[in-house]
Amino acid sequence: MGIEMEQTCVELSNVAVSETHGEDSPYFAGWKAYDENPYDELTNPSGVIQMGLAENQVSFDLLEKYLEAHSEASTWGKGAPGFRENALFQDYHGLKTFRTAMASFMEQVRGGRAKFDPQRVVLTAGATAANELLTFILANPGDALLVPTPYYPGFDRDLRWRTGVNIVPIHCDNSNNFQITPEALEAAYKDAEAMKYKVRGVLITNPSNPLGVTIPRSVLEEILDFVTRKNIHLVSDEIYSGSVFSSSEFTSVAEILEGRQYRNAERVHIVYSLSKDLGLPGFRVGTIYSYNDKVVTTARRMSSFTLISSQTQHLLASMLSDKKFTENYIKTNRERLRKRYEMIIEGLRSAGIECLKGNAGLFCWMNMSPLLEKPTREGELELWNAILHEVKLNISPGSSCHCSEPGWFRVCFANMTEQTLEIALQRIRHFMERIRTQSV
Amino acid sequence: MGIEMEQTCVELSNVAVSETHGEDSPYFAGWKAYDENPYDELTNPSGVIQMGLAENQVSFDLLEKYLEAHSEASTWGKGAPGFRENALFQDYHGLKTFRTAMASFMEQVRGGRAKFDPQRVVLTAGATAANELLTFILANPGDALLVPTPYYPGFDRDLRWRTGVNIVPIHCDNSNNFQITPEALEAAYKDAEAMKYKVRGVLITNPSNPLGVTIPRSVLEEILDFVTRKNIHLVSDEIYSGSVFSSSEFTSVAEILEGRQYRNAERVHIVYSLSKDLGLPGFRVGTIYSYNDKVVTTARRMSSFTLISSQTQHLLASMLSDKKFTENYIKTNRERLRKRYEMIIEGLRSAGIECLKGNAGLFCWMNMSPLLEKPTREGELELWNAILHEVKLNISPGSSCHCSEPGWFRVCFANMTEQTLEIALQRIRHFMERIRTQSV
Repeated sequence: MGIEMEQTCVELSNVAVSETHGEDSPYFAGWKAYDENPYDELTNPSGVIQMGLAENQVSFDLLEKYLEAHSEASTWGKGAPGFRENALFQDYHGLKTFRTAMASFMEQVRGGRAKFDPQRVVLTAGATAANELLTFILANPGDALLVPTPYYPGFDRDLRWRTGVNIVPIHCDNSNNFQITPEALEAAYKDAEAMKYKVRGVLITNPSNPLGVTIPRSVLEEILDFVTRKNIHLVSDEIYSGSVFSSSEFTSVAEILEGRQYRNAERVHIVYSLSKDLGLPGFRVGTIYSYNDKVVTTARRMSSFTLISSQTQHLLASMLSDKKFTENYIKTNRERLRKRYEMIIEGLRSAGIECLKGNAGLFCWMNMSPLLEKPTREGELELWNAILHEVKLNISPGSSCHCSEPGWFRVCFANMTEQTLEIALQRIRHFMERIRTQSV
Repeated sequence: MGIEMEQTCVELSNVAVSETHGEDSPYFAGWKAYDENPYDELTNPSGVIQMGLAENQVSFDLLEKYLEAHSEASTWGKGAPGFRENALFQDYHGLKTFRTAMASFMEQVRGGRAKFDPQRVVLTAGATAANELLTFILANPGDALLVPTPYYPGFDRDLRWRTGVNIVPIHCDNSNNFQITPEALEAAYKDAEAMKYKVRGVLITNPSNPLGVTIPRSVLEEILDFVTRKNIHLVSDEIYSGSVFSSSEFTSVAEILEGRQYRNAERVHIVYSLSKDLGLPGFRVGTIYSYNDKVVTTARRMSSFTLISSQTQHLLASMLSDKKFTENYIKTNRERLRKRYEMIIEGLRSAGIECLKGNAGLFCWMNMSPLLEKPTREGELELWNAILHEVKLNISPGSSCHCSEPGWFRVCFANMTEQTLEIALQRIRHFMERIRTQSV
């Protein structure tokens, strides 16, 4: 070729990406196995069931019903107004109606216990872009963010790839149900210092992906005290806040700030999205809510690189402004997710597998460490491989989430029908029986 | 506040942005004046007319008519299929139907003289994102891209802000109608070397924004020879290719490559968008078309940060797959733009103002240098200020486009009705008469 491609970012870029999404990662292998042989009740009943995808399909019928009843929200045909205005609208502030609806939806999801100002809502094409954008703003290349483990594997791409920022893990483990402690925060900070990184902030996911649990109020208070003491930022990724099974079990950092009369609020930034709670990942709707005026202004300008189609803003502004719809949706969605969660937890328990006690999300955090031949990453991946190729379930190994204890897996339960979930559970039961028989 | 915000990217970032979009730039002042006092035929006939916005409204009725006749493309209501699939679709490849339609539309715009493979189409949320993404891939922080002047002011943000890449101008001037010459290319390359920048590529806009002219085939050949000789990349931003008044007057770099049997094609990357030619900036639809497999792969992964709503892909896949519609649209749009162009050129000429001979775009490049009191940037901005506040027209000074000759202005003509354009021309005529009277 002659082009010095090896010196360009193409090569540099691949470093971060290949770790999580490279072709020899479990991520790719699992997807490949699923893509080549996807389960179908009728046509391919022995195919791979996809349980590695945190997608919410349990409440889709509610969205469809809304659209049936409100075709004016999506139609741009004969006599429908708004097409011209929307097609031309490219302001990085976004449609005011949509920002207002978004702020109000975020309040509803938090049971009205926190207020959101539409002026502080910055729109981005998904939470992926929101997290990257905040990292660009809060840190310089070579700086670090502290992130509790296990964490969403995509962060290795979103926070690091183009920003040049480092992730330093805050190690959490099963001894206290993977909760973040002041000691773990301090240890991570020291680790970063030892590596000569300037620490710019802590990034938490609340509820946690992959754990499927909310962060208790007292822990949130400790984290907020920590970032205040260290004079750094706090990013709270709350994209599963509407997927907590019971509203009262979730405390947003927004509530804590309200309780503290917004003292030191300018160091706090919330990320939200409609991909999980509303099950609309294809629409690419994310948002940054910052209490810092400078961050709001810069993020808005920077959002030029990642704007949301005004057609989609228009549709969702209608949908989210309909309080009757949103109230019913949020309530029903929580109930259905809890039902699914209980179904999988009980199914796994009857097969002899325990999970971390969860209260949120589209997945459970499954403990298979007793089954590992060796308590190592290799042992975990061996088991994962057997589950993928023998049991034909694509689940996510904890090591891909940087979990420091081997033997944990994230298992998604909301991207399929109850029937399919039942099949998956049957397969796991048989697998466990086979293991027990072999080990006798 | 106590937060060391001054050391974060918030501050660093603002450097590049404030140059072009900062609150003391002509850009902001012009928009502010317009926003505070916008022209309206009935309610505010003496208000500011916005001529600084490269927006295409002349063919909007064709899109509206299409949507009236094909409500199935936009409706998701009773019995309409596809909502679930589209709402869940988040693959960074994009909808195959849309990529195929996009490739085919790009062929049509080029009169069928170049082929586009849907597999090489990478989708991004607008050309803004496409240009930034390519810069991230092709260059490292501190490297340089050569860009002919005058250029679109947004490049100072898009190519530099988050990438840390430098723009080195290729100076063009009126002595040869602002055409790029081999000497100017070499001089820019030497300038970059003197600054110790590694040059990674040349970025051209063809047709040119702000010049409103296409780049002749012979010049394109020279540019391609230059990048081949220097072993660097060529990015060809062709977002106005469907806005050339006559198809035969546009040569895409794709045609040159086809003529060269794709020799050295892997260094060439085309940027396209539907914001200008189709007048849909609100929908945020851009694309990178690269002849380099590695760039396609990396750009696709990187597009995770800037995906297009699948709702919008779905709508546009229908629209662009309708060959009867697209053929008529492309033809009619060209004719209408030419008519508008001739209207403004003749109006200006009758007022005593000459423009660069144009053949494309939504604007003309107006020469007011004979009117400058001093042939400097300050002189230009004084005149611009008078036009904004006395004549009440918001146009773009050439200096904001890094034009090396003072006295040139970009004047947009497609974001208003013919009636409004007529008012704008009347105002200019009166202004010129006043000047002539004063100087007598």
